[in-house]
Amino acid sequence: MTKKYRELPKLSFSETRDLLLDKIEPLNSENVMIDECLGRVSARIYFATNAVPNFVKSPLDGYAMRSCDIRYASEDNPVTLKVVDEIRAGVLPTKVINKGEAAKILTGAPVPQNADCVIMYEQTEFDEKSVTVKQSLKPQQNIIQIGEDQQKGMMLVPRGSAINPAMIGLLASQGFHEICTYKTPEIAVISTGDEVQDLDQPLVFGKVYNSTRYLLAAELRKMNFRCNYLGIAQDNVENITALIDKGMEENDTVIITGGVSAGDYDLVPEAMQKCGIEIMAYGVRMKPGMACCYGIKKGKLCIGLSGNPASAMINFHAVAKPLLKKLAGFAEVCPKLFKVRVINAFGKTAKSERLLRGSLVLENGSCEMKVNAEQGNIVISSMVNADLLAIVPKEHGPVNPGDELDAFFI
Amino acid sequence: MTKKYRELPKLSFSETRDLLLDKIEPLNSENVMIDECLGRVSARIYFATNAVPNFVKSPLDGYAMRSCDIRYASEDNPVTLKVVDEIRAGVLPTKVINKGEAAKILTGAPVPQNADCVIMYEQTEFDEKSVTVKQSLKPQQNIIQIGEDQQKGMMLVPRGSAINPAMIGLLASQGFHEICTYKTPEIAVISTGDEVQDLDQPLVFGKVYNSTRYLLAAELRKMNFRCNYLGIAQDNVENITALIDKGMEENDTVIITGGVSAGDYDLVPEAMQKCGIEIMAYGVRMKPGMACCYGIKKGKLCIGLSGNPASAMINFHAVAKPLLKKLAGFAEVCPKLFKVRVINAFGKTAKSERLLRGSLVLENGSCEMKVNAEQGNIVISSMVNADLLAIVPKEHGPVNPGDELDAFFI
Repeated sequence: MTKKYRELPKLSFSETRDLLLDKIEPLNSENVMIDECLGRVSARIYFATNAVPNFVKSPLDGYAMRSCDIRYASEDNPVTLKVVDEIRAGVLPTKVINKGEAAKILTGAPVPQNADCVIMYEQTEFDEKSVTVKQSLKPQQNIIQIGEDQQKGMMLVPRGSAINPAMIGLLASQGFHEICTYKTPEIAVISTGDEVQDLDQPLVFGKVYNSTRYLLAAELRKMNFRCNYLGIAQDNVENITALIDKGMEENDTVIITGGVSAGDYDLVPEAMQKCGIEIMAYGVRMKPGMACCYGIKKGKLCIGLSGNPASAMINFHAVAKPLLKKLAGFAEVCPKLFKVRVINAFGKTAKSERLLRGSLVLENGSCEMKVNAEQGNIVISSMVNADLLAIVPKEHGPVNPGDELDAFFI
Repeated sequence: MTKKYRELPKLSFSETRDLLLDKIEPLNSENVMIDECLGRVSARIYFATNAVPNFVKSPLDGYAMRSCDIRYASEDNPVTLKVVDEIRAGVLPTKVINKGEAAKILTGAPVPQNADCVIMYEQTEFDEKSVTVKQSLKPQQNIIQIGEDQQKGMMLVPRGSAINPAMIGLLASQGFHEICTYKTPEIAVISTGDEVQDLDQPLVFGKVYNSTRYLLAAELRKMNFRCNYLGIAQDNVENITALIDKGMEENDTVIITGGVSAGDYDLVPEAMQKCGIEIMAYGVRMKPGMACCYGIKKGKLCIGLSGNPASAMINFHAVAKPLLKKLAGFAEVCPKLFKVRVINAFGKTAKSERLLRGSLVLENGSCEMKVNAEQGNIVISSMVNADLLAIVPKEHGPVNPGDELDAFFI
């Protein structure tokens, strides 16, 4: 089989991402119970079918009355009203409030007809039959209006958005108890490399523990995806092909690490071709994370990442994550860029774009980034505190304190 | 039973939080498998027991050689070396590299003795027996040093920190496959209020759907806690007492919503007392979220929040969340405050501190907050896009664009 993929042009990370985004479609939708939908992606727009609240109610325990009856009430001119009703929450008022009357009212209870204000319990003197008020209230004071939280017809949840707690509160307040969401992507993870060793045995000299598997699985789980680990493929095309085939059959995407760099053991692209996967990108013009291989078979994505954990993860954040977000149904899949002012220098220069790991510093009203100390291809330790990747443009010289870079959250 | 709790001083949210923090101890620890520890809280410090990598290796596919042999290599002066070995990853080199020799080397493979640089495969001309180089390399160029990711003894994971994907990568690379974490708090959630209705029936006029239950459960699950919902207690002390008792027995904390405001139906504090819970705080000087009730029994927390969902959630974020984080073993439990510049005005003033819901805006290098439109006690809709709470100090006048406030992430 020819290795035509080696002739594919090497694009920037955003060009590679955009090229592949065009090939990905979201998964189907399914209904889930409302108490299972946190973090799921909404597959339809939800509008308010009712106003919330749908009746005028009291925000506190107190007395409901007509504001005109207490217009001139003060310490020197106390006004005593007759208590004609007691309205608990969940119970409809039976009496209209007439001149000189009030109703005891509890938090959340409907305000009776003709009453237009509620005074706090602690601001009155009262007995069972009467309440004395020593201040005036404005019309509508301490009254919760119809629709104060949600107007009928307002959008509660847009399509393609991760459902957060407040959205769940809104959906529940409308009585929705099954929510239409996109299916959760199932991602197969395959490791390769004869040097990679499972965790349960003492480390053989010259080998490394399989950290990328766990790192990648955790990133996928953080995105709310399911991760199915298929094992370590031996360094031969047959073995890798068999695992990719299995992964592609039973999952929505396959991610395989190692075996993608440009030596003559670039087994992964060869195995991908054997599986009938069309390779769309082989390598990306970025540092770290240059070594990678992206292919598609019947709309299904197969991703080969570097065996070096930091390279793998930076390529993952820059290229793979937006693709997986599209698959998962997100409406916004590309990270939002914003400017950060770099606090500390980074001396190395590169011909291609470089993505620098860093931490966001929000102090004194400014938006800054601390560049983490180690930026090597294999360095995981500098990702522990990294919440940002900043983009150093190609041909950019050394990064100096005070430089402004575009950055995005990871 | 006397209602002495009514005489408790009303403190600020931070004073209330700090008072209660003193009473809370973290849960016990347990070991979990490494692929289950994402988001769990580490219960011990993890140090690197080995350097990673623990041998000198190649970051790429290429040829390992002595830099002195190619010191004068150039386009005009190509240097041809004899290929004496081929080193795959996971295999130890058998040959020493002598003058005029090189070894073919694959990504991740150990660099052979005497070689001190690796040249990329693409930058050479080669056949099976020789490689020709047309450039010089520096000593140590393209060599991954011992400990480049992790020095032996370096701290990988501090105690009391939520375990993130990069930490999982570090732990795996050291071969740790069981991780010592704090137990996950189990939180009982109880709703109260005769006006509160389950989602599965058409809404009765004057009642409201039980949104707070789902909102609160989602916030707890977002914190990685388990949430056990015990149902809606009817508005009487006996019923509430029974559910609190059950909740306290089977869970690490109880949160009950509704029935805490200062009317004569303040059933929750009464029920808490009946359960033998010592009430430590009844009400907090903050807006919204003033109505609340916090008590302790044998070191176990019982939290009463408002029935108004926004009040409940703001009190939750400001007071309850740090307490629950301490229970869960977090070392840092109080939110980090940082300055935000407010973009838009908020006119209402208050005698007590006010927590404003808003969204962080990071543009042009500055750290700003958009105050969300609706800030009422019952308004959930303005929490959908809220990622911050900003603190308006007590007695502060109206908030104007450009004002600087302390804020924290929720």
